[in-house]
Amino acid sequence: MKTIGIIGGGQLGLMLAQEARRLGLRTVALDPAADAPAFAACDGRIVAAYDDAAALEELCRQSDAVTYEFENVPGEVLVPLVEKYNIPQGFRPLYDSQDRLREKENARACGFATPDYAAVDDERSLREAAARLGYPCVLKTRTLGYDGHGQAVLRSDSDLAKALPLLAVPCILEAFVDFDFEASLVMVCDGVRTITFPIGRNVHRDGILDLCFVPAEGLAPGLEERMRQTGERFMQACGYTGILAVELFVKGDRFWFNEMAPRPHNSGHWTLEGCTTNQYRELARFLAGMPLEEPRLAAPTVMKNILGRDLDAARRLAAQTHEGVYVHLYGKRESRPLRKMGHVTFVGCDAAEYAARWAERFA
Amino acid sequence: MKTIGIIGGGQLGLMLAQEARRLGLRTVALDPAADAPAFAACDGRIVAAYDDAAALEELCRQSDAVTYEFENVPGEVLVPLVEKYNIPQGFRPLYDSQDRLREKENARACGFATPDYAAVDDERSLREAAARLGYPCVLKTRTLGYDGHGQAVLRSDSDLAKALPLLAVPCILEAFVDFDFEASLVMVCDGVRTITFPIGRNVHRDGILDLCFVPAEGLAPGLEERMRQTGERFMQACGYTGILAVELFVKGDRFWFNEMAPRPHNSGHWTLEGCTTNQYRELARFLAGMPLEEPRLAAPTVMKNILGRDLDAARRLAAQTHEGVYVHLYGKRESRPLRKMGHVTFVGCDAAEYAARWAERFA
Repeated sequence: MKTIGIIGGGQLGLMLAQEARRLGLRTVALDPAADAPAFAACDGRIVAAYDDAAALEELCRQSDAVTYEFENVPGEVLVPLVEKYNIPQGFRPLYDSQDRLREKENARACGFATPDYAAVDDERSLREAAARLGYPCVLKTRTLGYDGHGQAVLRSDSDLAKALPLLAVPCILEAFVDFDFEASLVMVCDGVRTITFPIGRNVHRDGILDLCFVPAEGLAPGLEERMRQTGERFMQACGYTGILAVELFVKGDRFWFNEMAPRPHNSGHWTLEGCTTNQYRELARFLAGMPLEEPRLAAPTVMKNILGRDLDAARRLAAQTHEGVYVHLYGKRESRPLRKMGHVTFVGCDAAEYAARWAERFA
Repeated sequence: MKTIGIIGGGQLGLMLAQEARRLGLRTVALDPAADAPAFAACDGRIVAAYDDAAALEELCRQSDAVTYEFENVPGEVLVPLVEKYNIPQGFRPLYDSQDRLREKENARACGFATPDYAAVDDERSLREAAARLGYPCVLKTRTLGYDGHGQAVLRSDSDLAKALPLLAVPCILEAFVDFDFEASLVMVCDGVRTITFPIGRNVHRDGILDLCFVPAEGLAPGLEERMRQTGERFMQACGYTGILAVELFVKGDRFWFNEMAPRPHNSGHWTLEGCTTNQYRELARFLAGMPLEEPRLAAPTVMKNILGRDLDAARRLAAQTHEGVYVHLYGKRESRPLRKMGHVTFVGCDAAEYAARWAERFA
C-alpha cells in the first residue's frame, strides 16, 4: 500500500487525503498546527514548521511520493530532499511561482501572454514604471502575497505615496487589465499527457475567490480550446508534472496569465461533485503512478466559498435539504471573517439560478 | 463543532467518517484493531474491545452523538450508556437483529412477511421443523452469523446429519424461498420522516454480497412503492430512528423480510456516487440533528464488491481510466480471499453493460 506525503495540512490536504484514501492510498501530512484540517483524514501526522528540514525528511522517509499543498516551502529545505526522495513535482514549479516577477517571466517565456509589468524596488523605479504602464496599475509584493494581501491598486500619481510601505520588500508593478472575468486552468500532467478540468468563471470578493461558475457561460468561440492548448503547451515547455492551476484574466477572445499555483486550487473544489473526476483524485492518481482520467463536466455547477462571515449561512443551508447542494466544512476550530471555513457546491445550477435562488443567503 | 462517535472501525465507519467530515463534523471511532480502516479518517481513535465498558463510555464522553457500524455490541454494555449519553438509535434495533428468531418475530409483528421458520435446538426439533417446512430449507445459527457463515442448506433428510454441528448453539430453520432476487431497503428515519434509497437488485456469491444493480430492472409494477411503504411503516411500528437496512427476498410481485442491520449497508455503497445523497451522509445528518434529504437515483449504477480474490483485478482497473468508474479500496493491510477489501462503483452502467464490459475482469 503506497503512502502519499503532503507538505501542508489545510483544506487542500484534507480533500487530497480523502480522495487518496478512496483509492486505497495511505497519507501522511506535515503542518505546523496540531489541529490542521488534513490531520483528521491522514494516517500519519507530523507537527512541524515548513522549514524544519528534519521533519520534512521524516515525511519523505514515510512516503512513497511527496507533494505540497502550501506554496512557500523554502527551496533550501526542499531541493536536497528532491534529490533523495520521490517528490515528482520537484521544486521547480514552486520556485517559479514563489516570486511574481520570475513567475511572469517564466509564463511569457513558455507561451502565455501576461499584462505588462516592471520590477520596482524604490520610489524612483515605481514612478518610472507607473509612467510607462499608465494608470490604473497594481503594485504587488514579489513574494508571499495571497488572496489580495500585499497588493495596492494605483489609480493616479496621488496613490503613489500610500503604496510606498509595500516597497519595504521587492515589488512588481503590473498594468491593470480591464478583464471581463477571471478563469482558472487546473491541469494535471503525467509527463506525457496533460488533462485539463472544465474551465469556469471565477468571481472574487475582497481579493478572495468567492464564486466559480462552470461552465464559463458566454466564452468567445474556440476560446476554451485555445486556453487549454496554451496551458498544455506551457506544462510541456516548463517540464512540469503533477498539478498546476493557472489563473487567467479573460477579455473578449483574449486571455492573460495572472498567477499560478502548483497544487490543487480553490477554483477546482467544484470538481468533487460537478465533474466525472476531481482535481484531488487525479493528483492522487498521478502521485501513485496511475494513469490520468480525462475529466468531463457532469452538470453546470456553482461553487461558493464559505469564509467565516458566511459560516452561519452555510450552517443554515446544511440544516436544510436541497438536492444537488453539498455543504463542505473543513472542521477548523477558529473562525475569522475572511478565513476559508468551507465551500458549497451547487450541482445542476447555473449563474442565473444561483443569483435567483442562493445569492441572497450569503449577502 | 459536533463529534460523532462510531462503535466499530471498519469500512462502514471509514465512509461514515469521511462523509461526516465533509459536513464539518468531527468523528471518533472505537475498534479492537489498531489499524482499523476508519481510524485513518477519524479525529479520535480508541483501540478497545467492543465489550470494554470503560472504553465505550470514553467514546460516549467524547461524542455528541454515538452510533454503531458493528452489530454485535453487547446489550449489557450498551444499555447503561444509552441511558446516560446520546445514542439516538438506542439498543433496540441491535437487540432485535442480534437473534434471527427475535428478528423474524419482530418483522412479522411489524408488517413484513417472512419465510416460514421454526426455532430448533436439537436433532428432534430439527427433524420436526424440517418435516413441517419441507425441503429445501436453511438452518442458521440464531446469533453471530454473517455473510453466509453459520448456515447450512438442507435438501433432504440425508442432509440433517451434517447440519447437526450447527446445533451446538440455538438455531432457526427457515423455509427456502425460491426467490427471483434479493433486494435491500436502506432507510433513515428521523423519528417523523423516513427516507428510502432507491432499491436495487443484490447478487450474492459464496454467501457474500457480490453485486448491486440499481435500479432493480424488471420489478413488478408498483412493487418498489409497496416495499418502501412496508419499510416505512416498519420503522414507525418499531419506533426505530437512524439507519436501517432490510434485506428482502423478491419473487414476482411478493417480497419477504430476510434480515436487517441497523447500520450503513454494503448494498448502499453505490449511493456515494450513484445517488444525489448517500447513506453515510444521511446517517451523519441524522446524528447531527440535521433534516434528512430525499435521495434520488442520479444514473443507473452497478456496485461490485472487491474481496481479496478480486483485489488484483480492482488494482488493474484503478490503474486504467474509465469515466464513471470509481474504485474504492479500504486500506486494509491484510488481504484474504473472502475479505472485503474495497468496492467499485460503475455509474451510468446497467446490468447488460456490466455483463458485457466488466464482469469478465472479476471472473
